Amino acid sequence: MTIAHDLPNPSLQTNPEHTLELREQPIELPGPDEVLLRIRATGICGSDVHYWKHGQIGELKVRGNCILGHEAAGEVIELGSEVKNFEIGDRVAIEPQDACGKCFLCIQGDYNLCQEVDFLSVYPCHGTIQRYRVIKAKNLFKLPDNMTYEEGALCEPLSVAYHGIERAQLELGRGAMICGAGPIGLATLALANACGAAPLVISDLSADRLEFAKKLVPRVQTYQIDLKKSAEENAAGIRKLFGPREEDAPPKVLECTGTENSIITGAYVVRRSGTLMVIGVGRDIINNFPFMHLSFGEVDVKFINRYHQSWPAVIRLISDGIVDVKSFVSHRFPLEKAVEAITLSSDPTQSSIKVIIEDK
Amino acid sequence: MTIAHDLPNPSLQTNPEHTLELREQPIELPGPDEVLLRIRATGICGSDVHYWKHGQIGELKVRGNCILGHEAAGEVIELGSEVKNFEIGDRVAIEPQDACGKCFLCIQGDYNLCQEVDFLSVYPCHGTIQRYRVIKAKNLFKLPDNMTYEEGALCEPLSVAYHGIERAQLELGRGAMICGAGPIGLATLALANACGAAPLVISDLSADRLEFAKKLVPRVQTYQIDLKKSAEENAAGIRKLFGPREEDAPPKVLECTGTENSIITGAYVVRRSGTLMVIGVGRDIINNFPFMHLSFGEVDVKFINRYHQSWPAVIRLISDGIVDVKSFVSHRFPLEKAVEAITLSSDPTQSSIKVIIEDK
Amino acid sequence: MTIAHDLPNPSLQTNPEHTLELREQPIELPGPDEVLLRIRATGICGSDVHYWKHGQIGELKVRGNCILGHEAAGEVIELGSEVKNFEIGDRVAIEPQDACGKCFLCIQGDYNLCQEVDFLSVYPCHGTIQRYRVIKAKNLFKLPDNMTYEEGALCEPLSVAYHGIERAQLELGRGAMICGAGPIGLATLALANACGAAPLVISDLSADRLEFAKKLVPRVQTYQIDLKKSAEENAAGIRKLFGPREEDAPPKVLECTGTENSIITGAYVVRRSGTLMVIGVGRDIINNFPFMHLSFGEVDVKFINRYHQSWPAVIRLISDGIVDVKSFVSHRFPLEKAVEAITLSSDPTQSSIKVIIEDK
Amino acid sequence: MTIAHDLPNPSLQTNPEHTLELREQPIELPGPDEVLLRIRATGICGSDVHYWKHGQIGELKVRGNCILGHEAAGEVIELGSEVKNFEIGDRVAIEPQDACGKCFLCIQGDYNLCQEVDFLSVYPCHGTIQRYRVIKAKNLFKLPDNMTYEEGALCEPLSVAYHGIERAQLELGRGAMICGAGPIGLATLALANACGAAPLVISDLSADRLEFAKKLVPRVQTYQIDLKKSAEENAAGIRKLFGPREEDAPPKVLECTGTENSIITGAYVVRRSGTLMVIGVGRDIINNFPFMHLSFGEVDVKFINRYHQSWPAVIRLISDGIVDVKSFVSHRFPLEKAVEAITLSSDPTQSSIKVIIEDK
Repeated sequence: MTIAHDLPNPSLQTNPEHTLELREQPIELPGPDEVLLRIRATGICGSDVHYWKHGQIGELKVRGNCILGHEAAGEVIELGSEVKNFEIGDRVAIEPQDACGKCFLCIQGDYNLCQEVDFLSVYPCHGTIQRYRVIKAKNLFKLPDNMTYEEGALCEPLSVAYHGIERAQLELGRGAMICGAGPIGLATLALANACGAAPLVISDLSADRLEFAKKLVPRVQTYQIDLKKSAEENAAGIRKLFGPREEDAPPKVLECTGTENSIITGAYVVRRSGTLMVIGVGRDIINNFPFMHLSFGEVDVKFINRYHQSWPAVIRLISDGIVDVKSFVSHRFPLEKAVEAITLSSDPTQSSIKVIIEDK
Repeated sequence: MTIAHDLPNPSLQTNPEHTLELREQPIELPGPDEVLLRIRATGICGSDVHYWKHGQIGELKVRGNCILGHEAAGEVIELGSEVKNFEIGDRVAIEPQDACGKCFLCIQGDYNLCQEVDFLSVYPCHGTIQRYRVIKAKNLFKLPDNMTYEEGALCEPLSVAYHGIERAQLELGRGAMICGAGPIGLATLALANACGAAPLVISDLSADRLEFAKKLVPRVQTYQIDLKKSAEENAAGIRKLFGPREEDAPPKVLECTGTENSIITGAYVVRRSGTLMVIGVGRDIINNFPFMHLSFGEVDVKFINRYHQSWPAVIRLISDGIVDVKSFVSHRFPLEKAVEAITLSSDPTQSSIKVIIEDK
Repeated sequence: MTIAHDLPNPSLQTNPEHTLELREQPIELPGPDEVLLRIRATGICGSDVHYWKHGQIGELKVRGNCILGHEAAGEVIELGSEVKNFEIGDRVAIEPQDACGKCFLCIQGDYNLCQEVDFLSVYPCHGTIQRYRVIKAKNLFKLPDNMTYEEGALCEPLSVAYHGIERAQLELGRGAMICGAGPIGLATLALANACGAAPLVISDLSADRLEFAKKLVPRVQTYQIDLKKSAEENAAGIRKLFGPREEDAPPKVLECTGTENSIITGAYVVRRSGTLMVIGVGRDIINNFPFMHLSFGEVDVKFINRYHQSWPAVIRLISDGIVDVKSFVSHRFPLEKAVEAITLSSDPTQSSIKVIIEDK
Repeated sequence: MTIAHDLPNPSLQTNPEHTLELREQPIELPGPDEVLLRIRATGICGSDVHYWKHGQIGELKVRGNCILGHEAAGEVIELGSEVKNFEIGDRVAIEPQDACGKCFLCIQGDYNLCQEVDFLSVYPCHGTIQRYRVIKAKNLFKLPDNMTYEEGALCEPLSVAYHGIERAQLELGRGAMICGAGPIGLATLALANACGAAPLVISDLSADRLEFAKKLVPRVQTYQIDLKKSAEENAAGIRKLFGPREEDAPPKVLECTGTENSIITGAYVVRRSGTLMVIGVGRDIINNFPFMHLSFGEVDVKFINRYHQSWPAVIRLISDGIVDVKSFVSHRFPLEKAVEAITLSSDPTQSSIKVIIEDK
C-alpha cells in the first residue's frame, strides 16, 4: 500500500519568532530503511513549550520553522524497500533520537550522547505533532495489543525516568527520594515503586501534585517544599520522614525539577556514599553547589541525557501491568486543536499533568 | 529483668553419628554486647537436614554435638551490660553469622566471606532450635509491629535470595530466569518480581512446585524440566518462553538448585553478555561446564556465600507489603516436636515448602 | 591511484581437508566505505594452526577454502569512494572483526559478541596472509610514525590481553597472577605490568618460557607448573610466592592457557572476593570445576570473546613506549614462505613465540 | 621493653587563637590493642597549615590545643598487651584515621566515611608532630627494609591520590588530565603514570611546578593555566593537547586544586561519558558549575573523602619501585625546628613541595 503523498498533513510549528501555528506540511517518502507513520498520539513535553517560548535549550536553538512533538506513537502505513521487520498496520512507539552509529559514543553503547544525533522536534529535525511522519525502522518498537497509542507515546517520558533509575541503580528495599512531582518526577516515582525501592519520599511545591503522587503510589510519603526555608532546612524535613539516623537517609536521590534549590536540597538529603541523580536539568549553571558536603560523604553526582535501549523495557513494564501510565493523561485534544493543547500545557495555573494530542 | 538460667532449654541436636535428639541444653549468660533471646520461631533449612544426614557441607563438618537452626526470630529477655539499642520485650530477627570484623574481607565490606565467621548451626556454633539463645546485639534487627516472628525467621532465606539478586543486578523490565522452585528459588522469584524484572520464567522438576510459584507470582511463566532431555534441549524449551531472538533471552539467570544439570541448563539459557548467578551450590565440583559457550557470550558466572547487610532491606520489603513470605510456610510444629518437624522436612515425598518450629 | 587488480596475490589457504597451500587469489575492489590494503605484516596465531589442523574451534568450522591470518597491518593503496579519513600511503593496523552494527549487542557496545560478525580467517571470511586485502575503513587505525607494521600486527594479540585486563579490572598495587607464558600470557603480563598491578606471578610448564617472561618483566615472579602435582598443590605453591595470608593472595587471576588443569589451579589461587578471568578457552567443556570453593569465596568467573574498542588504546601503549611487543617476535618469514612459517609455528619442539609473515 | 613515660615529648601545637608553638606533651600509655611509636618522620600537609591559619575545614573546627601532623611513620617501641602482629623495633607507616567499625558505613567497607572517625591532627585528636604517639595496631603497616621513614610518611598523601585514581577507574592506554601540580596533584600524576593511563596532561598556574611534574613523569604534557582566560578557553587549550576530536578528550579528569576555576575547567575538558573526579576540595560551595554541559555529556562527578585500605597497595608501589616519591621532599627539618618547617610550608613565595619533619 502506498498513500497519496499529497494528502493534507497539518502540523504544529514554532520558529525563532516564538510564534506557533498549525500549517500544512509536505508528506515525505520513506527511504529504503524507513517507514511512513500515521501519527496517532503525541504527548506534549515541557521542552516543546520551552522551544516555543524561549527558542532554545542550552546550545540547541530554534533557527527556523520546526514542528514540535517527540513523545509519540503511530501506525505503519508505508514501508521502505528494505524494511523487513514491520508490516502495514503495525502499531508502534517511536524512539525519537537517531544517532550516527559511527562515532565512539555510538560504538561504546552511549548512542544517546552522539553529537550527530537528530532528535525529533529539535531544529532542524521536525517532530511528531503532524499527521504523517517518516521514521527509520530501527527507531520503532511494536506495541503489544494490550497497549494504546497513548501509552505508546508515554514510553518516551517513561524512558527518561527509566534511564535515570538505571544509572542511579536503585536497590530493592533501600530508600529513594524523588524531587519534583511533574510528569518526569511522577514517571520516576512509578518506576522507583516498580523496582521495589523502599521507603519512598517525593517532594514538590504543590500540594495537588503531591496528592496525585500519593494516589499513583500509595506507599510514597510526601513532603511539600517550603521556599521560605533554606535548602538545608527542607532537606532536614525530608530526612525526618526517612528516619533519625544517617543510615536511614536515602542512598539515592532522583532530582526531577532542574531547579537550583531542589538540587541543593537533594544534595543534603542523600546519605553518605549515595548518589544524587540529576534527571532534570533546567539551567546552564548552578550556584551554591555544596561541594564540601558532597565530598565528605563521597556522594556521586550523575546526570542523564535522554536514554538508550529503553523502549523494549518500558513497553514490557506497561504491557505486563507493572507500571501504569494511563493516569498521567490529564487532557486530550485532537490534532486540529494542537495550538490549544500546547497553550494549556504552558499555563501554570492549569493543573495539567500530561496533555496528549490524538489523531484517531 | 533477669531470667533464671536454670530454666529448661530443650534443643534439637545432631552429631557426627547422624542421630538427632531433643535434649536439654544449659542457658548461657549474655556478655556485655550480647542479648539473651527467647527464640520464638525457627525455619528449617535444607542445610539443617544436610548436616544431620551427611554430617558436612564442603569443608564444614559436624565434629560433635550441635544444635540445628539458623532461620530465626525471638524476643529480647535479657540485655548485656553495654547494650543500648534494645529493650526487654523487643521482637527481633537474627542475622545468624558473626564475623571477626578485623580481617581484610570484613574491612572491605564482605564480612560474609570472613574466614573466622561463626555461623549458627555450623559446628561448633549452636543454632536456634532451642528455647533460649544468646546473640550479639549487632546481629539483631527489630521487627516492626506488623511483622510476625515467623516472618522474622524467614528474613534469613529471603536474605540469601536478596544477596543473589543484588549481585546479579536484576533490571527493571529486563528478563530473568529462576532455576528451581524450592524455598530459595521461591524467595528469589518473589524478589525478582518485587524488583520489576520482566519477563520471568521459573523451572523445576515438579509440577506442584511450579503451580505454587505461579500462585505466588501470577506473572511468572513456568517450565517443567524433563530429565530425559539434555540440558541444551531444556534450555531451548525455556528460551522459547522468552521469545525467538537472542535479544529475548534473559540477561540474568538465577540458579537455585545446586545441581549440575540445572547449572548447565542455565548456562545455555542466559543471553550473550548476561550473568549466570549461582545461588545454590550443592556439590564440590561440577563437570561438563560449557566454557566455550560461556566464553563466546562473555557470560559472567557469579556465586554467593550467604549475604551481608540485607536484614534492614528484607524487613522493609516484608513490612511494607512489597514481598509476601507468609505463604511459604507449609507446616508448623511446636519446639517439643522438632524431631518430627525436621523429619518431615527431610522427606521428599512430602510437599513441604517451609517448615517452622514455633515456641509461643 | 588505482592498482591493477590483476596483479599476483599469493595467499595462504587451508580447507576442510586440513591441507595448506599458497595459491593465487583474485584481488577484490574496495566498496564505497572500504579500503584496499597492501598487507605488510601478519602474525600467526594459535587459532590459525588450529583451523588448519583441526578444522574448527567450537561451532566455527572450515567448510571450504579459507585464507588464514588476522593479526595484521598494511598500507592503504586504494580508497573507496566515501572514505574520507584515510589517504593513499597511510600505514594502518587492522581490527579483524566486522560486526553488523544493528543487533542489540552491537548497540549496547558489545559488538565483539555480535552473532553476525565476520572475522578475518574464520570461514568463509578470508584472512590477511595474502598480498592484498579489502577492509572496511571503520576497522582500520592509523599507525604513528614510530610504529612498525610488525607492531601494528601485534595490536591484535595485545587487544585480546587488553580486553581481559579491562574486564578483570586489575588494580594498581594489588596482585595478579597470569597462568601461561605463551603469546597471550606474555601480552597479558606486559599489560599487567603496565597497569601497575603488583605483585605479579606467572606460571607455565616450560622453564624457557618463564625465563622469557622474566626478561620481559623483571619484577614478575615465576612458577613452573608440575603436572605430577594436583591443581590444589600447584595453587598452594603459587600462593606461597604471594605471601602466607589469604589477604596476600591475588585478587585477580588471568587464565591464558585454556587447559582444564590450569583453570582449576587458577580457581584455587585467586583470593576470596576476587576474579578468575578466563582469557584463553581451548575446550568446549571443563570438568572438575570447583564450584563449592568458588562459592565460598564469591569468586567471579569471567570470560572474553575477542575485544572491542581496544586499538586506539593498544596503539597508544606501544607508541608511547609503555608496552614493548618487539621482543615477542621470534621468527620472520616472507609471504612466499608462509607455509614454512605456519609449519614452524605449529611445531611444539620449536620455541617460537610469535612468527611474523612480512611482505616488504 | 617499656620506655620511661616521663621522657621529653616535644610537640607542635596550634589552637583556636591561631598561634603555634612547640610544647611538651605527656606520653600516653598504649592500651591493649595499641602500640607506642617513636615518630620518625611527618610530612606537612596543606590542611595542617589551614588548621593553624583558619582554624577549621568545613565543619571540622580547632576548639582547643591540638598537635598537628598526620602524614607519618615511626618505630614501634612499646606494645599493648594484646598486640600480636608487631614487635619492638618494627618500622611502620601510620594510617591516620580510626573509624568506629560499627556503623553502616564501616560495615559496608566505607570506613573513611564513618561519622565517628578520629583523625590524627583533627581536633580533639592529636597528630604526629611529636616524639611519641600511641596508635592502634590495626592502623599500622610494616615498612619493607627498602623503604625509609620518609617514604612511609608519604604513604598518606599517596593514599589520597590512590583513592581518587581507584574511584575514577583510570584505564590503561586511555587519557587522563590532572588539574594542579601541588603535592596531591603530583602524587596523582605519579599514580596515573604507574597505571598506564595515556596520554597524560597536567595543568597548573606555575611554570615551575609544571617543570617539576615533567621531570617526575617525562611523558606528561603540561598546560599553564592563564587566569585571564575563561575556564572554557583554558579547557579548549588543554583539549588541544589531547587531539582535535571529542574522542581524543580524556575520559577522566582528576581535579587536585579545589578551586572553582579549575573545577569548571575540568568540567569542560572531560569527554562525554567521562568522569570528573574531585580529589581536592577547598571551598564549601562552588558557583557557576556547568550542569547543562555535564548533563549533555552524562559526565559523572565524583568526590573522595580520604581513603580506605590503601596502605598495603601504596607501600607495595613504593617498595617495588613502581612509584617514586623521594623527589617530592623539598625540605627537611628536625622536630625541634617544627615551627620553622610549617612556617616555610605556609609561605607561597617558597617553592616547597613537601616539607618533612624528621626525628632521627
